[in-house]
Amino acid sequence: MQPWDFVVIRNRATKRAVNSLFIDANTKASARYTGAKEVLYRGLKLEGIEEAPINLCITCSRRRGGPSVLGRSTVRATDLYSTCCAVQNLWLAARAEGIGVGWVSILDHKKLKRVIGVPQSVTILAYLCLGYVSKFEVRPDLEAAGWRSRIPVGRLIHEESWGNRIQDKRGDEDAHHQGLYKNGRRRKN
Amino acid sequence: MQPWDFVVIRNRATKRAVNSLFIDANTKASARYTGAKEVLYRGLKLEGIEEAPINLCITCSRRRGGPSVLGRSTVRATDLYSTCCAVQNLWLAARAEGIGVGWVSILDHKKLKRVIGVPQSVTILAYLCLGYVSKFEVRPDLEAAGWRSRIPVGRLIHEESWGNRIQDKRGDEDAHHQGLYKNGRRRKN
Repeated sequence: MQPWDFVVIRNRATKRAVNSLFIDANTKASARYTGAKEVLYRGLKLEGIEEAPINLCITCSRRRGGPSVLGRSTVRATDLYSTCCAVQNLWLAARAEGIGVGWVSILDHKKLKRVIGVPQSVTILAYLCLGYVSKFEVRPDLEAAGWRSRIPVGRLIHEESWGNRIQDKRGDEDAHHQGLYKNGRRRKN
Repeated sequence: MQPWDFVVIRNRATKRAVNSLFIDANTKASARYTGAKEVLYRGLKLEGIEEAPINLCITCSRRRGGPSVLGRSTVRATDLYSTCCAVQNLWLAARAEGIGVGWVSILDHKKLKRVIGVPQSVTILAYLCLGYVSKFEVRPDLEAAGWRSRIPVGRLIHEESWGNRIQDKRGDEDAHHQGLYKNGRRRKN
């Protein structure tokens, strides 16, 4: 379907303008929290717009290919989904080359369009910061910071129909989780 | 954010019911085409529901985590995008293990929810068919079948702002495209 476009941003003035959009949106987002949670929120690293040598704005042109596009006729959002898959491919490819990628979602896309000149008819899907990093963390930042804990995978996998979760039948959740990470085959029981 | 759930389907009766939804939706989808295009459409392989040993229904619970979820406060669709990234991770991991994956999007999700028991409040995002395949094609099926041609990558990459496409400045599009595939660094010009 290829509904995507990639805008590569190196210009400092553009990054500065985008960062200012982030600050505005993040002020609103942080107002959702109070007390200790607000303090924790303010300490989180949520963008790398000006530090990253490359920023990437990834869009989805929802009318590309005309009114009848194979794969988009029944579920209209498949063009957005397809673009997300392209983002994730890029993310993993970058990671394999030792390049860190961060997705900044705390941005007003309407204002971002004006900064980058994206037409009104085109949807902004992702804004990424790319660059070499000092290290890659093993645990997700939000988990390490104590913001939120990971949901055990067994609670998210259902057998045959919704509600028949594999965790309910097993119990030794962690062992199963470990098994998945080791690429072990799950035994039937 | 982990808004996803995975329903693993092995049951033949369920697959048969899903396949029947595919046939209904595909009859409607194929009606968008006439003449030679319709004949070509009908010859395309668009699902593997009953042949594949495993079908996977992947959902997004849009209210998981409560009203304030970090990363979902500014752009509401980030939970859907996050789930797409999980789908693509699974897709690539499967491919690395020699397992073929196909995403069947020609399904009425409202009816599919009833077949799999997915609650009304949960969004179905993807329906995948997984299995070992006889071979992996190098070119996408739709390109090989002459359904649609690939858009040169240089037309989809813009420098600094929308409209400043790298293809317009280069010309030798194919050479550049090849260069990207070879992981070569792009020279400034």
